[in-house]
Amino acid sequence: MSNYFCVNGKIVLAENAKLQVTDLGLLRGYGIFDFLKVENRIPLFIEDHLTRFQNSAKEMGLKIGYSVEELKILVMKLIAKNEFKNGGIKIILTGGYSKDGYLPAKESNLIILLTHFKVPSKKVFAKGVKLMLHEHFRHASFVKTTNYIEPIRLANDLKKVGAMDVLYHWDGKISESSRSNFFIVKKDKTIITSTSHVLKGITRKRVLDLAKSHYKVIEKDITFRDLKSATEAFLSSTTKGTLPVVQIDDFKINNGKPGKVSPHLNELLKKQAKKYKNDFKKMIK
Amino acid sequence: MSNYFCVNGKIVLAENAKLQVTDLGLLRGYGIFDFLKVENRIPLFIEDHLTRFQNSAKEMGLKIGYSVEELKILVMKLIAKNEFKNGGIKIILTGGYSKDGYLPAKESNLIILLTHFKVPSKKVFAKGVKLMLHEHFRHASFVKTTNYIEPIRLANDLKKVGAMDVLYHWDGKISESSRSNFFIVKKDKTIITSTSHVLKGITRKRVLDLAKSHYKVIEKDITFRDLKSATEAFLSSTTKGTLPVVQIDDFKINNGKPGKVSPHLNELLKKQAKKYKNDFKKMIK
Repeated sequence: MSNYFCVNGKIVLAENAKLQVTDLGLLRGYGIFDFLKVENRIPLFIEDHLTRFQNSAKEMGLKIGYSVEELKILVMKLIAKNEFKNGGIKIILTGGYSKDGYLPAKESNLIILLTHFKVPSKKVFAKGVKLMLHEHFRHASFVKTTNYIEPIRLANDLKKVGAMDVLYHWDGKISESSRSNFFIVKKDKTIITSTSHVLKGITRKRVLDLAKSHYKVIEKDITFRDLKSATEAFLSSTTKGTLPVVQIDDFKINNGKPGKVSPHLNELLKKQAKKYKNDFKKMIK
Repeated sequence: MSNYFCVNGKIVLAENAKLQVTDLGLLRGYGIFDFLKVENRIPLFIEDHLTRFQNSAKEMGLKIGYSVEELKILVMKLIAKNEFKNGGIKIILTGGYSKDGYLPAKESNLIILLTHFKVPSKKVFAKGVKLMLHEHFRHASFVKTTNYIEPIRLANDLKKVGAMDVLYHWDGKISESSRSNFFIVKKDKTIITSTSHVLKGITRKRVLDLAKSHYKVIEKDITFRDLKSATEAFLSSTTKGTLPVVQIDDFKINNGKPGKVSPHLNELLKKQAKKYKNDFKKMIK
């Protein structure tokens, strides 16, 4: 975490960044957020994240009270004030100080935090990760809510079996991981990602766009049968890019070895991020 | 709301009752609570509520840091300090100030609030209420989490159709309302309440115990077929006692009129509460 946070438009010392306990995010878990990566002081793909943030707010009936442009300025101010070079930005919006402890207030509460996070090491990318199947249906998956009760509650179980995260399934269909989208590859040339009841990740979208020129790309529900015939699997997220998945419970994919598609797409993602940074620098000159 | 709240054991002015924004209840919706009624300064059935609170904490891997007896003392202190006669008490426990913004901290945050709430009017009890069916599966229903995203998101829809609350169903089974348990009556003498994927309410338990001497009582999944043959339906909750349900979407129960079982049980609940209050007074003398 950094020295300064932003609470309702004001930049304050992190230790003074507080909300009253009548906040609906706290009382009723009524909140949304978005998370983006900062590289060399540049908030990557901030426009995409703020657009999704706006959509999440709308779906929850919450008013942000700031335009995308104003939010961008707040974020840039906070990066400057913290002399923040690399890490993550989290923007949270809650139902505000509710009068009856249930219905959202007229004014939401908006918080912006800068955080440091661990990127998986080169070794993890080279070895791939294990996931743990978990039967779970994500309600209102089109909204990036703050509700992470299920995977946090399972943190010890994950640790026990050496899994990095859960892999949700419901009614025979595999949807996503708790903080990443899930992809499989068939015959090394067809990329499939789940489409129902998943959060439409910004990196997911970037992966699909970039993959189109090199692979056949399909968005459809992934069944266990699909999984069994996969030659490769990977996750996508803002912090991970694309990360190989080599084992799901006891089932090994590609004999437990990462494939070639995930590293290839990760290179394409990195190139695209580099271009974004160059464009961003030119723009603010 | 009242003048004083309790934050981590300290009684503070409500306006100063704050948590830092790194609290996991806020960042990840990782929190539990319990809610009980205060009548004439007496916290009704506080032992039952604190036992459930302890269970919720355990299921979420959270340490309360206070024994049931210590919590009871904090509650009584807060009631005295506020000169609080009638209303509600909410006790909240969150994952604390998380270091990585994801995993619970070693120390949880504990908040106690006194609130005023609206009891349904005599007219509402006499007329009964309407519910709106909503397809929803409550995960980890055995834990009283702070997650109320779904019903709050639907508040406007409820208002539009004149429904007091949602009635959750999933896979052909009716489970519960967002803040109440659901009961049906068959042939005016058999009481049925849902048992799978519902929060086991304190009032639900009291209703089942009291009803046993007067009716046949069954705990089982309620199907739509059961609903169609019901001669009466009602909700149970701490604030409502038992409240008649006369309409679900367009379907009317008992021609849209409350039955006799719900008011009967409500009288029994009131008698039991009166006894509790008398015993409580004797105990603290």
